[in-house]
Amino acid sequence: MTDPTALLGPDGFPRPEAWLEHRVSYGETDAMKVVYYAEYLHYFERARSLFIRRHGMSYATVEERGIALPITEATVRYKRPLRYDDLALVRVGISQWRGASVCFVYEVHSEDRATLHATGSTRHACVDPTGRPVRVPGWLRALFTAS
Amino acid sequence: MTDPTALLGPDGFPRPEAWLEHRVSYGETDAMKVVYYAEYLHYFERARSLFIRRHGMSYATVEERGIALPITEATVRYKRPLRYDDLALVRVGISQWRGASVCFVYEVHSEDRATLHATGSTRHACVDPTGRPVRVPGWLRALFTAS
Amino acid sequence: MTDPTALLGPDGFPRPEAWLEHRVSYGETDAMKVVYYAEYLHYFERARSLFIRRHGMSYATVEERGIALPITEATVRYKRPLRYDDLALVRVGISQWRGASVCFVYEVHSEDRATLHATGSTRHACVDPTGRPVRVPGWLRALFTAS
Amino acid sequence: MTDPTALLGPDGFPRPEAWLEHRVSYGETDAMKVVYYAEYLHYFERARSLFIRRHGMSYATVEERGIALPITEATVRYKRPLRYDDLALVRVGISQWRGASVCFVYEVHSEDRATLHATGSTRHACVDPTGRPVRVPGWLRALFTAS
Repeated sequence: MTDPTALLGPDGFPRPEAWLEHRVSYGETDAMKVVYYAEYLHYFERARSLFIRRHGMSYATVEERGIALPITEATVRYKRPLRYDDLALVRVGISQWRGASVCFVYEVHSEDRATLHATGSTRHACVDPTGRPVRVPGWLRALFTAS
Repeated sequence: MTDPTALLGPDGFPRPEAWLEHRVSYGETDAMKVVYYAEYLHYFERARSLFIRRHGMSYATVEERGIALPITEATVRYKRPLRYDDLALVRVGISQWRGASVCFVYEVHSEDRATLHATGSTRHACVDPTGRPVRVPGWLRALFTAS
Repeated sequence: MTDPTALLGPDGFPRPEAWLEHRVSYGETDAMKVVYYAEYLHYFERARSLFIRRHGMSYATVEERGIALPITEATVRYKRPLRYDDLALVRVGISQWRGASVCFVYEVHSEDRATLHATGSTRHACVDPTGRPVRVPGWLRALFTAS
Repeated sequence: MTDPTALLGPDGFPRPEAWLEHRVSYGETDAMKVVYYAEYLHYFERARSLFIRRHGMSYATVEERGIALPITEATVRYKRPLRYDDLALVRVGISQWRGASVCFVYEVHSEDRATLHATGSTRHACVDPTGRPVRVPGWLRALFTAS
């Protein structure tokens, strides 16, 4: 799934990367006393937004420039549950560029990075305001690959 | 809080009313094994949408006609917790009309109507597409007050 | 991904199946005016609960019998967006049984079944109250495979 | 609603207070392109948890000591909408102590504190593990009133 042209760190995770700190709220837990499975997609989105912001742009600005990145596929692998009040570290990077799509990958770690709670990915189409697929603009790719 | 011009049923709840059946999902519960407190506002919104739909219109259509009903105030009183897989009956009616606002009231009952789980209210401004308050249009009031 | 022992319908979807009707609420939409991507996992869970209920048991009862089915993997493929007030039909069935896990598959259709909005899957471990993997009990498999 | 024994700051907000920074995610917005009304109760809960944590305890620890604080009433007044990627500052304090209940109040400010987006309150019963109301323990009140 990883683009041969993607820059990988020594641990096999793509670079550049970003790390989001996220405190688990009570509303994210369920009756099993762990974080509900859909919440991880919210974590991924928060990490993705942070990644874009760290590269000098907001996703809102990307949209203002006429590009939207709707999700076409999402996967999550749940390894160890998160609980209320845990501080999770959500890691994000870009694993693959294609002509008209981009794939983000994620890891959810414990505060001390000793436990990997989950991994996942989201694939995004690159579309214009009418929803038609377009090639990933050079400025977007340049933005995201700058370290 | 009730408009003297509102039609009340013998039980003091405004008429017309609508009843939404809602099955509690796992994702709505929290680590106390009961429905998380914010979910009740989702229930109220579902009941409100049903109320509008039952009166022959979708809230989407109301917006297409240039009227939005943003919420200015919400209250919930929590009486008995709901649990996973409970079938809740959410009752909704309009308690008050003012020049440029309308107030909905809600009750959340158990399936057998023997237990009142919660009550609440939402106040809505009536605004045009620019967000400016406008008088409640006659067609909207007529729509909602038809039984 | 489909178990050779699973019974498939003529359309390739496993049998037995269940169909959940779900009305899209405002709270499920996002600023792109479509259903937010994490909500589909809520839809899947609602459909799964319905599937279990239709087979004569609640997931709460499964848990009372000492079996939990925590999710180890989830995937969603997003094909066409859903919008506020749409009535979605969520189809669910079991595609695979393994010794200590079970895999559900899902399809999200429009009300008229003319549009396929999304597909997906969830894999569940079968665990005892201490969280240790156990073989899927016969009663559970019998329950789910009865038509 | 404010306890005469509560310590108020010069701005009329109770002391001690805590401020939570919260970045608005896409999943919190709705089709009106603003934060959905139920999300504010999540913000309040995050701020409340922070308040407790800042006073040296986690709400999980409060529960381990045999005290739960279920919400009996919540109110929100919506003044100015929040949008995707906004950084909100959520202020929290305790406005009232009664024998067996406590009331938190909240304000949601913009990043520059120039705009007040919302205000609200939550009332909490103090209950033992069986759900029976009990007097607020001295250690809890001491914890929350220490500055």
